[in-house]
Amino acid sequence: MPVHLKIEIEKLKKKILLLSEIVENRVKTALKAADERDEARARKIINEDVEIDRFEVEIEEDCLKILALHQPVAIDLRFIIAVLKINNDLERIADLAVNIAEKVTILAGKRRVDAAAGFSEMAEKTYGMLRKSLQALINMDSAIARQVMATDDEIDTMNREIYDWTKERMREDPENITQLLTNLSISRHLERIADLATNISEDVIYMIEGEIVRHKGELQ
Amino acid sequence: MPVHLKIEIEKLKKKILLLSEIVENRVKTALKAADERDEARARKIINEDVEIDRFEVEIEEDCLKILALHQPVAIDLRFIIAVLKINNDLERIADLAVNIAEKVTILAGKRRVDAAAGFSEMAEKTYGMLRKSLQALINMDSAIARQVMATDDEIDTMNREIYDWTKERMREDPENITQLLTNLSISRHLERIADLATNISEDVIYMIEGEIVRHKGELQ
Repeated sequence: MPVHLKIEIEKLKKKILLLSEIVENRVKTALKAADERDEARARKIINEDVEIDRFEVEIEEDCLKILALHQPVAIDLRFIIAVLKINNDLERIADLAVNIAEKVTILAGKRRVDAAAGFSEMAEKTYGMLRKSLQALINMDSAIARQVMATDDEIDTMNREIYDWTKERMREDPENITQLLTNLSISRHLERIADLATNISEDVIYMIEGEIVRHKGELQ
Repeated sequence: MPVHLKIEIEKLKKKILLLSEIVENRVKTALKAADERDEARARKIINEDVEIDRFEVEIEEDCLKILALHQPVAIDLRFIIAVLKINNDLERIADLAVNIAEKVTILAGKRRVDAAAGFSEMAEKTYGMLRKSLQALINMDSAIARQVMATDDEIDTMNREIYDWTKERMREDPENITQLLTNLSISRHLERIADLATNISEDVIYMIEGEIVRHKGELQ
């Protein structure tokens, strides 16, 4: 690989890893804010999202410059394309952390209702998937990425169970419908974070192995 | 532009336009199925999604081949990158059409409840945004793309109004909570389709003008 390209790719790698750390942290903080109903913390997440948006645009511009100036091929080309897509997914995950934070501000001051059975397990599992997908990216480890892909169905099942549980509670306790609907939204946002962590894992595998594994389960 | 590259780009353009037509049609059919509670039509959408997944992978592979073999620069490079991203967004829109269709199968056989005030207006407006974003793509028209971007806030407002309306109805009529929650999910899926149509429009503008307009409103 030409030395200039190598330097650019190393710089890009550092940036996407930095973004992934920031985004992981936002999700963690949003879940903590939800757990503790910490409105101040939630507002901080909402206000700071603009930094992530800016960082995403910067990384995309870097990718395009590298493509235009260095015209990479083979694994280097795959790396840039995967970064482009992962960058996009990270920004969407950060948006979901903002959505969770917005729900926390709705809950603030309202009477607490029980969280759905299985909610904290789902939150932990989703956060674990996100962490693993980013570890797979950092360590270029397709085995970890495949573990993430295998977990996504569990999250879907958990989400459905929470949906059913919440529906029953709404029927029994219509006075607290705002809180129940809000909690339901949070678990839906978690499910989407898990989806995006799965997408990142698929792109990591593509980056390393050159194989598009997306939709494989569905296509076979 | 070298003649081989020109041929490849024309072929790619035809494919992404074909995909966009198919996806637009899926959304239209899903909304029709929802309106008429047509379970058979809904199941067809669910079953045929695999074709779209396959087509998306094919287009992505085409993009990568063109990048590797022809090493395009300037507007050609931007075109390929925009197609990569739009391809991804189209596949996600098709997934949302499937999600709407799944909700139709839940509603089938259940007692009909009134649709939320403003729901059909939201459905029409969202579908209009999707059509326009694809028109902008077909005609390479950034003015139309900007119109789409300007509409997204209206959809968010409509979605919030439907949320509030539904919450009230749930409180008054807890027996029909399944249908009310299901209708609420459909309007949420519409809102995400509008978001993705906005993304497509942003990418069309980038393709034509070379300017990343994403997050511009938020950054200024």
